[in-house]
Amino acid sequence: MRFVTFEYKGQQSIGLLNDDQTRVIDLASVLNEKGSTINIPSTLLEAIDLGETFIDEVTSSFQWLEKRNIEDYSFYLKDPELRLLAPIPRPSKNIFCVGKNYAAHAIEMGSAADIPEHLLMFTKAPTTVIGTEETVFNHAHITSQLDYEGEIAVIIGKKGTAIKEEEAYDYIFGYTLLNDITARDLQKKHKQFFLGKSLDTTCPMGPWITHSSLVKDSVLKIETKVNGELRQKGSIDQMIFSIPTILSVISQGMTLEPGDIIATGTPSGVGSGFSPPKYLKSGDEIEIRVDELGVLTNTIQ
Amino acid sequence: MRFVTFEYKGQQSIGLLNDDQTRVIDLASVLNEKGSTINIPSTLLEAIDLGETFIDEVTSSFQWLEKRNIEDYSFYLKDPELRLLAPIPRPSKNIFCVGKNYAAHAIEMGSAADIPEHLLMFTKAPTTVIGTEETVFNHAHITSQLDYEGEIAVIIGKKGTAIKEEEAYDYIFGYTLLNDITARDLQKKHKQFFLGKSLDTTCPMGPWITHSSLVKDSVLKIETKVNGELRQKGSIDQMIFSIPTILSVISQGMTLEPGDIIATGTPSGVGSGFSPPKYLKSGDEIEIRVDELGVLTNTIQ
Repeated sequence: MRFVTFEYKGQQSIGLLNDDQTRVIDLASVLNEKGSTINIPSTLLEAIDLGETFIDEVTSSFQWLEKRNIEDYSFYLKDPELRLLAPIPRPSKNIFCVGKNYAAHAIEMGSAADIPEHLLMFTKAPTTVIGTEETVFNHAHITSQLDYEGEIAVIIGKKGTAIKEEEAYDYIFGYTLLNDITARDLQKKHKQFFLGKSLDTTCPMGPWITHSSLVKDSVLKIETKVNGELRQKGSIDQMIFSIPTILSVISQGMTLEPGDIIATGTPSGVGSGFSPPKYLKSGDEIEIRVDELGVLTNTIQ
Repeated sequence: MRFVTFEYKGQQSIGLLNDDQTRVIDLASVLNEKGSTINIPSTLLEAIDLGETFIDEVTSSFQWLEKRNIEDYSFYLKDPELRLLAPIPRPSKNIFCVGKNYAAHAIEMGSAADIPEHLLMFTKAPTTVIGTEETVFNHAHITSQLDYEGEIAVIIGKKGTAIKEEEAYDYIFGYTLLNDITARDLQKKHKQFFLGKSLDTTCPMGPWITHSSLVKDSVLKIETKVNGELRQKGSIDQMIFSIPTILSVISQGMTLEPGDIIATGTPSGVGSGFSPPKYLKSGDEIEIRVDELGVLTNTIQ
């Protein structure tokens, strides 16, 4: 199951991709027609908050739809009037971000001394979020060092405090792609990362949320290209802190909630790691790909 | 005008204190009886989002109430069935926090080299928020260095990007008190401050929001006591980055929104500044006072 938030003729809705990823199924219209007994969610945040009830309903909706004409309940993904939004266009708190979670990236940002012994975590404001194919502001009046960071993000599916590592996957609703765009000069100047990480539009996210059942046991591999040039290549088994460790450490004293978004860190190959640095310029196109999660594409203003 | 969020017999509502701060006026019942034409807000976040319309409505409500029996529309503040909650019990994003904004505090946390040249900003998760007289968890399983930080917080009243310093006060709805409780050991261990600042219940806030019109031109003075012992004493004219500077710097590339909460930093006298340190222990009572803003009192579990 791949969950999307989309706009069709100006109306925002939530939906599902069909298996060959060509059509967006309008969830509300299926649930209505099918006579669903749940309160039909209007955002993915509401949907995720429903927990297993929602997943059961979606599963039975797919079965119901098999006996019907899918075209009556869906739109072409490539319909010019349809636009994918970030799956969670407005998170209900800041996005949690793990810093320096790939050793080679920690080294390119400084030296081996920068490889963290303990989880490094900062946040991005909810006002940073945009969807795939939306434009990233260049913020040229305040930064000349805009940089990309391709990342895999975890979407929390149920409330948890002091989550045990061995139970961590039970708390994951799904996964999406995220570009943790960073103004390197502001990140350095202000020491704490938050300001350099929270400029408007610097958190492209999407194109959809892939449900955890579809990526079970996969060793996700991520690639970031800028204008078609391969810049970053990594795999989640290279993380210093694994996804279960991240969830466990964060939740020791802080409750995680459904819809929380945790960006798990970026592999080496960011612009500032090159000599001379390859910062983003107006018109640059950044493409982040994980086979199981799709492609997140954005252009700099 | 002093705005409160309160619970009466289990029902959450918003209200106003009367001038002698003895009664909580139930805003919905006044607006209903008065025949208000606005959509009656059920939370202060919704109220603040209404902007000037809301303030005008509240002003005329006070006039309307002058000719009536206030007891029909209010509760005693000390009624045992009434409980003040945090004025914004669930912020819609993380709380913005300025670090090391008083020189003497920066020095007590290290040395003069720690006085920041540029704004230092981190965040606290919305799950940290509690109200006055609520209990702060001791989190003894993960920290032995829980510390207090008495602070004045600004509540943003209208949306703004690239706010000019000279216009900053136009964007402020009001002020409240906030205790930026910090696990010093986690703050150091994880380097970025977020995790050590975001344990559940470590952001007591309140007791209410004092509207900006009541503190015009006041040089607010803050005091923090632990078990009656004066620990912190400061005044906003000692801040390294003034409130207008803070709003201007943050908003250069990040849009501020109604209801955003910005903690402006703590004066010297935190527990870790003493030798030996005076960390918080179970049963400790922390009291933060600004004459214009009231008293925020919390006890450690």
